[in-house]
Amino acid sequence: STQRGFYFARRSRGLATLKPQTSLFSPLDAFPERHIGPDDHEASQMLAKIGYNSMEAFIEDTVPPKIRISTTTVNNSSIPAFSESQLHARAKALGGQNKPFKSYIGMGYHAAVVPPVILRNVMENPAWYTPYTPYQPEIAQGRLESLVNYQTMVMSLTSMDIANASLLDEATAAAEGMVMAFFSTHQKRRTFLVDSGVLPQTLAVLRTRAKGFGINLVVRDAKSALKEQALRTDLCGVLVQYPDVNGSIRNFEALAESVHSAGGLVVCATDLLALSMLKPPGEWGADIVLGNSARFGVPAGYGGPHAGFFAVTDALKRKMPGRLIGRSRDTTGQSAYRLSLQTREQHIRREKATSNICTSQALLANMAAMYAVYHGPAGIQRIAKKVHGFTQVFRSAVEAVGYTPENKTFFDTVTLNVSSVAGSADAVHSAAAAAGVNLRRIDDARVGVTFDESVSPEDLLALINVFTTVASASSLTMANLKQPEAPAIPSALQRTSEYLPHPVFNKHHSETEMLRYIHHLASKDISLVHSMIALGSCTMKLNSTSSMIPLTWPEFSAVHPFAPYDQVKGYHTVIKELEEDLCKITGFHSATLQPNSGAAGEYAGLCVIRAYHESRGEQHRNVCLIPLSAHGTNPASAVMAGLKVVSVQVHPDGNLDLADLQAKAEKHKDNLAAFMVTYPSTFGVFESGIQDACKIIHDNGGQVYLDGANLNAQIGLTDPATCGGDVCHLNLHKTFAIPHGGGGPGVGPICVAEHLAPFLPSHPVMPVKGDQAIDAVSAAPFGSASIALISWAYVKMLGGQGLGDSSKIALLNANYMASRLSGHYTLRYKNEKGRVAHELLIDLAEFDKSAGLKVTDFAKRLQDYGFHPPTCSWPIPTCMLIEPTESETLEELDRFCDAMIQIRKEAEDIIVGKQPRDNNVLRNAPHPISAIASTEWNRPYTRQTAVYPLPYLLEKKFWPTVSRIDDAYGDINLVCDCPSVEELAS
Amino acid sequence: STQRGFYFARRSRGLATLKPQTSLFSPLDAFPERHIGPDDHEASQMLAKIGYNSMEAFIEDTVPPKIRISTTTVNNSSIPAFSESQLHARAKALGGQNKPFKSYIGMGYHAAVVPPVILRNVMENPAWYTPYTPYQPEIAQGRLESLVNYQTMVMSLTSMDIANASLLDEATAAAEGMVMAFFSTHQKRRTFLVDSGVLPQTLAVLRTRAKGFGINLVVRDAKSALKEQALRTDLCGVLVQYPDVNGSIRNFEALAESVHSAGGLVVCATDLLALSMLKPPGEWGADIVLGNSARFGVPAGYGGPHAGFFAVTDALKRKMPGRLIGRSRDTTGQSAYRLSLQTREQHIRREKATSNICTSQALLANMAAMYAVYHGPAGIQRIAKKVHGFTQVFRSAVEAVGYTPENKTFFDTVTLNVSSVAGSADAVHSAAAAAGVNLRRIDDARVGVTFDESVSPEDLLALINVFTTVASASSLTMANLKQPEAPAIPSALQRTSEYLPHPVFNKHHSETEMLRYIHHLASKDISLVHSMIALGSCTMKLNSTSSMIPLTWPEFSAVHPFAPYDQVKGYHTVIKELEEDLCKITGFHSATLQPNSGAAGEYAGLCVIRAYHESRGEQHRNVCLIPLSAHGTNPASAVMAGLKVVSVQVHPDGNLDLADLQAKAEKHKDNLAAFMVTYPSTFGVFESGIQDACKIIHDNGGQVYLDGANLNAQIGLTDPATCGGDVCHLNLHKTFAIPHGGGGPGVGPICVAEHLAPFLPSHPVMPVKGDQAIDAVSAAPFGSASIALISWAYVKMLGGQGLGDSSKIALLNANYMASRLSGHYTLRYKNEKGRVAHELLIDLAEFDKSAGLKVTDFAKRLQDYGFHPPTCSWPIPTCMLIEPTESETLEELDRFCDAMIQIRKEAEDIIVGKQPRDNNVLRNAPHPISAIASTEWNRPYTRQTAVYPLPYLLEKKFWPTVSRIDDAYGDINLVCDCPSVEELAS
Ligand SMILES: Cc1ncc(COP(=O)(O)O)c(C=O)c1O
Ligand SMILES: Cc1ncc(COP(=O)(O)O)c(C=O)c1O
Ligand SMILES: O=C([O-])O
Repeated sequence: STQRGFYFARRSRGLATLKPQTSLFSPLDAFPERHIGPDDHEASQMLAKIGYNSMEAFIEDTVPPKIRISTTTVNNSSIPAFSESQLHARAKALGGQNKPFKSYIGMGYHAAVVPPVILRNVMENPAWYTPYTPYQPEIAQGRLESLVNYQTMVMSLTSMDIANASLLDEATAAAEGMVMAFFSTHQKRRTFLVDSGVLPQTLAVLRTRAKGFGINLVVRDAKSALKEQALRTDLCGVLVQYPDVNGSIRNFEALAESVHSAGGLVVCATDLLALSMLKPPGEWGADIVLGNSARFGVPAGYGGPHAGFFAVTDALKRKMPGRLIGRSRDTTGQSAYRLSLQTREQHIRREKATSNICTSQALLANMAAMYAVYHGPAGIQRIAKKVHGFTQVFRSAVEAVGYTPENKTFFDTVTLNVSSVAGSADAVHSAAAAAGVNLRRIDDARVGVTFDESVSPEDLLALINVFTTVASASSLTMANLKQPEAPAIPSALQRTSEYLPHPVFNKHHSETEMLRYIHHLASKDISLVHSMIALGSCTMKLNSTSSMIPLTWPEFSAVHPFAPYDQVKGYHTVIKELEEDLCKITGFHSATLQPNSGAAGEYAGLCVIRAYHESRGEQHRNVCLIPLSAHGTNPASAVMAGLKVVSVQVHPDGNLDLADLQAKAEKHKDNLAAFMVTYPSTFGVFESGIQDACKIIHDNGGQVYLDGANLNAQIGLTDPATCGGDVCHLNLHKTFAIPHGGGGPGVGPICVAEHLAPFLPSHPVMPVKGDQAIDAVSAAPFGSASIALISWAYVKMLGGQGLGDSSKIALLNANYMASRLSGHYTLRYKNEKGRVAHELLIDLAEFDKSAGLKVTDFAKRLQDYGFHPPTCSWPIPTCMLIEPTESETLEELDRFCDAMIQIRKEAEDIIVGKQPRDNNVLRNAPHPISAIASTEWNRPYTRQTAVYPLPYLLEKKFWPTVSRIDDAYGDINLVCDCPSVEELAS
Repeated sequence: STQRGFYFARRSRGLATLKPQTSLFSPLDAFPERHIGPDDHEASQMLAKIGYNSMEAFIEDTVPPKIRISTTTVNNSSIPAFSESQLHARAKALGGQNKPFKSYIGMGYHAAVVPPVILRNVMENPAWYTPYTPYQPEIAQGRLESLVNYQTMVMSLTSMDIANASLLDEATAAAEGMVMAFFSTHQKRRTFLVDSGVLPQTLAVLRTRAKGFGINLVVRDAKSALKEQALRTDLCGVLVQYPDVNGSIRNFEALAESVHSAGGLVVCATDLLALSMLKPPGEWGADIVLGNSARFGVPAGYGGPHAGFFAVTDALKRKMPGRLIGRSRDTTGQSAYRLSLQTREQHIRREKATSNICTSQALLANMAAMYAVYHGPAGIQRIAKKVHGFTQVFRSAVEAVGYTPENKTFFDTVTLNVSSVAGSADAVHSAAAAAGVNLRRIDDARVGVTFDESVSPEDLLALINVFTTVASASSLTMANLKQPEAPAIPSALQRTSEYLPHPVFNKHHSETEMLRYIHHLASKDISLVHSMIALGSCTMKLNSTSSMIPLTWPEFSAVHPFAPYDQVKGYHTVIKELEEDLCKITGFHSATLQPNSGAAGEYAGLCVIRAYHESRGEQHRNVCLIPLSAHGTNPASAVMAGLKVVSVQVHPDGNLDLADLQAKAEKHKDNLAAFMVTYPSTFGVFESGIQDACKIIHDNGGQVYLDGANLNAQIGLTDPATCGGDVCHLNLHKTFAIPHGGGGPGVGPICVAEHLAPFLPSHPVMPVKGDQAIDAVSAAPFGSASIALISWAYVKMLGGQGLGDSSKIALLNANYMASRLSGHYTLRYKNEKGRVAHELLIDLAEFDKSAGLKVTDFAKRLQDYGFHPPTCSWPIPTCMLIEPTESETLEELDRFCDAMIQIRKEAEDIIVGKQPRDNNVLRNAPHPISAIASTEWNRPYTRQTAVYPLPYLLEKKFWPTVSRIDDAYGDINLVCDCPSVEELAS
């Protein structure tokens, strides 16, 4: 019969790292074979295509022999491989070591209630967590809309004129606020006053940041300090916390007037939930309002990731850091969202940057926005009233048994003096611990208690009875708890204005509607669930399910960042192991996970270098050499660390101009602090002179900062230490598989050589390093700790062998593509052996003249082929930077190359005059469905040619939802919203 | 400034069951407000629109007063409401009461390893779990393709000619096989031989089924039994298990020849994983091959849901039960998948049905198919070799310390005689329990041990050491475990033929590729994430995330159905509470969750009725009255239960012809067994005569079977007991929010009056009821136990109040739609007050004459409007049956009505001759993108009119991926692949 006797597949897949089981006892779910796209057979095909008969021969030609490391440095002995199920079991076991105490610590962190529909359909949905930053708005309208919801929510609750689409956390947002205040006085006034009610972690980050900018930070009771004329004349701004760290809601109206009359700005750190009941800062005179939006449905996650919010008055909008989404129009006049970069300072050519923010917290901002959509104004008000009401009940109950509330006003926090009842705070903390709850530790006499949405009546009762027990009073029952009659907020501070009236916040309240809204938005966005996203310098690889799963387990997600160390042993094992593995991989001595992004890592690394120089009495070293090809965050970070940026020339092929480096290093040798360099370079070049370059710096007293964004090219082959660096950051959201989340979260750990280790950042609440440590760079001691789990799982599941194989295949994939495309496009760089690194730079300059085509035209046309365009116009304005990563199969690489080659043919038609220069498939790209649905069709090509230029598109195509968004509205050609070296070099 | 001073929303949502918090201590995450679509405001708008000023007045007119129940029967006292987080906590606590023993019990159930990418992106993805059965192939190509993968996988591994798209479980699949064998001899031969190596639960289900059909079941060693001539002459078939229950792999080649020469069919129950190493049944003469495919990545789930597979030879394909997907073509000639019903017996007019299968196990079949796609032939072989290898290691190790393996051949199972070493099996079971493992309990002397993919080397060692300890031998270490050199399968029984050579099983092996394949298929299918699916009689309501989440927790998903009761206390609480709540809701005394679908519930209920009659010495009662309007499964189930179907007339308005009922009941009074009736009727009618009808039956000695598919109209208002029934089934996958899974799973519990309770089905391995119980109707004691969690959560979260409100809003939504549509379409039925029940039947007959339009044209055109069509041509060929459910908001109802009304206008254009009868938007519907992308456009309407007939479609539209699939290939007008009463009435 026809169906019988099936033949075997001609070939079955057997990946580089997947051999037939050699042992019956080796696990069947080894991760490398699932992570790495090409199999053995494909790899040999690709090697053959580029002229090699072995991987080793190819690597010899690709990675400079001088910097190669021993094959034993990163292998399965140094980093053993766990299978997917082994990793799962290990994560479960470690999760079990985190003790699930109920937290009343507060201090800006709360146990969020994540609406299940958002948890599963946003946070756990690869369609939401794998996309890139929405630089290609035609294929990103979904999350752009959601980010606009986020901005709107922040504006509405704060009553401010404009808000951005998130910053890294509350503390760094406060630092951005301070710097804005400083620059608003043209750096003439150096005093920034911080009220003593501000969160300690915010203060620590301000201290670090003030140092770099030379700001004079004064921490005092703001009201009294403002009476001093000396302070007033040098005042650039004031930061207040509303409600403050101890829970008080203070009326800052007079203070705001006083600051304004002194010529400073009012910066207010606040809480979005409280603002649903409190008079919003925008109504009492704040100029800048910021905070953490995590309370809106984002898990505590031992510190993050969370979206910091940031809103300003209209007058300040052009100075605001971070990404801003705006409403615009496409070529047909249809309304469309896009990144509005042009209004903000980083995109205005200026001598100095004030912010380096690039990766932000898009995914978490989207979760918070969805929370507001789901609850709406009425729901948010109910939640706020409950939180406030529980606080009232608690406060009365403990007051009744003798405790003394210190704050007269409050929203959700009570600071109690316990000494008269309990003797010391310790007695209360011990009783609390015995009951499985954490309170805020303030001092010997006082404890803090903060309520959140997650507290149940039973929790409340249990908490109250911790206090009654310590007071030797009789325990209460539910029946004893009296409902307050009215909120206890002073009437002058009660909110009277409305919020969130927009339709989007008032219709998706049934789960069905919410589900559909979430999926409808997701359907507009291209992500890794659709096709390869070959973004040079961004390393969009597989974000595996098995590395994502533990993240949303409560044992990891529901942990307060200031929980006592003995409750977070599981987390600490994860952090320690990841730090150790990153050190093995980079060749360095120590690491910190505190920075929340690559740029934050750069900044932290430079601060460490400065501290090192300072420890040697060389605080005057303040020059930072940066090649012109550097990513814009490099010079921005240098400026923030108080360094003077000096540019170093780059050869047209991407290599550093060593002579120029030598000259500049010598010229600045007395003040040389650091050299920042990306390796392989931003051109995708393994420069053979890297060690020489580093030697030049060291010889002139400087330290080498290696930007590790391109580490994916290196693992197991070379490492930053061997290249000559002293410190590097890694983008865990690139090389180590944390998903990009549509523009964040990120983690930017830094790894340092032994001599820099003492200076790694500490934390004011949970000190993490020794006494030479610099102050905190992020709000949480371990930054966005929860997602470190992803990279930990990634490293453990690949093991040393898989990590090395990944880098090799990443190099092979890029070189295969270079080979396929090079007959058709101008490859900007190859080494002497004809090899590129893990990415390739193609130059489209020629088409401007020959066909009137710009990079953007090629990029938009790629959308029609179902692909997200590669990085455009960076690091060279006329180029595309293509990085396939190891996770893409040969078939997918070929599909992308086929598309690029077909587009080249389309360009040829224009060059030879077969198609007009001003009305062709590239210039008119992308073509959404609405374009071909129109009755009229006046174009010199068919609808078929417009939308199905290659046959594979008939089966699988991603459709842009709008046509090209008018260039006049923005700078879509930028990689990140960060300035170039030239713009920044002073 | 412009952004300040936002005004409040004009109205904010406040659902029927969501009032502002009356108590500070009531939870904020009450479920009813999320589940029910319309809010208070919308509800009053709708009531006003249909002429009422109160809900109660509306209900008075809608539900016959005589059958109304007290408002205290179903309220928050009788069924208290849990909030979403309270339910979560309760589920966690109950999960904690299930003890996670490692199971080696086997017997057809295994601990599956679900690939994480499939777990998260299929099983936990609403895009996969919320769609309906793919009766509308143009918007279901994704899961149709996946089901074809499933069929192909089964065919390839079994080496059979054709396979269906799943049955309910292995035992019912075996029963279907037996019945096919019986009918293949035209019911002339009544002996069906079951080999003693068959699983006990299969045997139990066969016993139940044999009884109904009057089959003579002989359980013997098949080989020896076949020597008896008497048996041979009456033989219709033989069932063998391969490998058998004790693990032996027997060579059935000679047996098959012998059966064939006797004129019977060979039915083989088998294991897909074993078949990757064993000579497949298709190669040694099996005619029918079946089993459970759950081992391919579907969790054990305490018994299910799992996909039973079923494959046959080409000669039998037209007799095969269940759904079959085939490849076909659309109007443009593009290849497309669809349900190929016409080749199978249920759709051939015949006097008697032999199967009632309707809801099957699509979601689980898709998971199993995706598992095969992910692993491919090489991966599956590795898994099989590991399982077999571990079995070899275990067997040698325990043999070495004195245990006696009884089976000479084996794949994954060893039956050990332990008496010489351990005295009795009990000693071994106690030692096993102490080590946290379960073994198969056989008898005093023997234990069974079965291996699966999930067993780690450490597990294996621990298991071996249970046996060494009992034997007082020294414990082994990993170093003692010797890898076998070669498989231990007799060479004559080794597989030599290839399997799964098809490209789909040989390319999606990286996680990235797998992820993209899963999402690509999902992108072709409409589901509840897109828009309302108003399928009459199918109740497509919200499948809430919070009810789905516990399902994939290991404490519920990784439990073997034969685990000792003391290890499953959590499950038993869930089952008991759900049964009790269903009894409160139906007014009955007892319930069982064993049936795996509504149809299986019908069958079980009728068997219970028969057992009841038998207990009273009235086994002759064998007539079943069924109205002509009944769902096709009703008569099919009756036939299976050995009943003679007698049809009862129905008035054109849908009401039962009580006179005819009376006449038939009296005519058959001596033999009247049962009356089956759906309430509200399949016309969407609350017949006021229901109690009279039931009385007629009771007066004539019959029992009333109430088909509860429409229970969603009743809760808190009336109940099946009050209506006069003795037994009813409920479709938990309709009323109780188990998602439809694209065609299953389902749960069809039956609830019975006290006099029937003693007869509820038991189970041979885990007896669940008293000694009058009928034999099992499903393989697992509690059927698809894991998904009962969903309904349990649903009931608990709505509470009595929310359940009642849901029914009220379901009625209101349907009546609102009836009102909006009635000016435009002919409403087939309204009661004397002008009300319909929870669904409405519109008759499109008139358009055939006036415009040449059939129901299908309207249905396909609805696809162009982004909607899944309602139930078509059932229960009346010219009608659509529209059921909105309570979860849809007024906005969505309006959107659907707008679409219907616009289509009516389009029809008008044809009627008045503005558009041609043979070439118009309805006849040409649906219009996929490819249709409007064509260069040519010869249609008498524009592309815009074709695809964007209403403005909302510009923002949100679901695109069919193919054009209409040729009618000549099938029966798209059927509701389920089940025969009508007329076809079945004998
Ligand atoms: C070379 C390089 N350095 C630094 C960064 C900044 O990293 P992040 O976006 O995480 O701040 C990037 C980001 O694209 C980069 O490509
Ligand atoms: C009235 C009625 N009865 C019975 C059934 C059969 O239920 P199931 O598909 O779960 O077997 C259905 C299914 O649509 C139905 O509508
Ligand atoms: O994510 C979705 O597949 O909709």
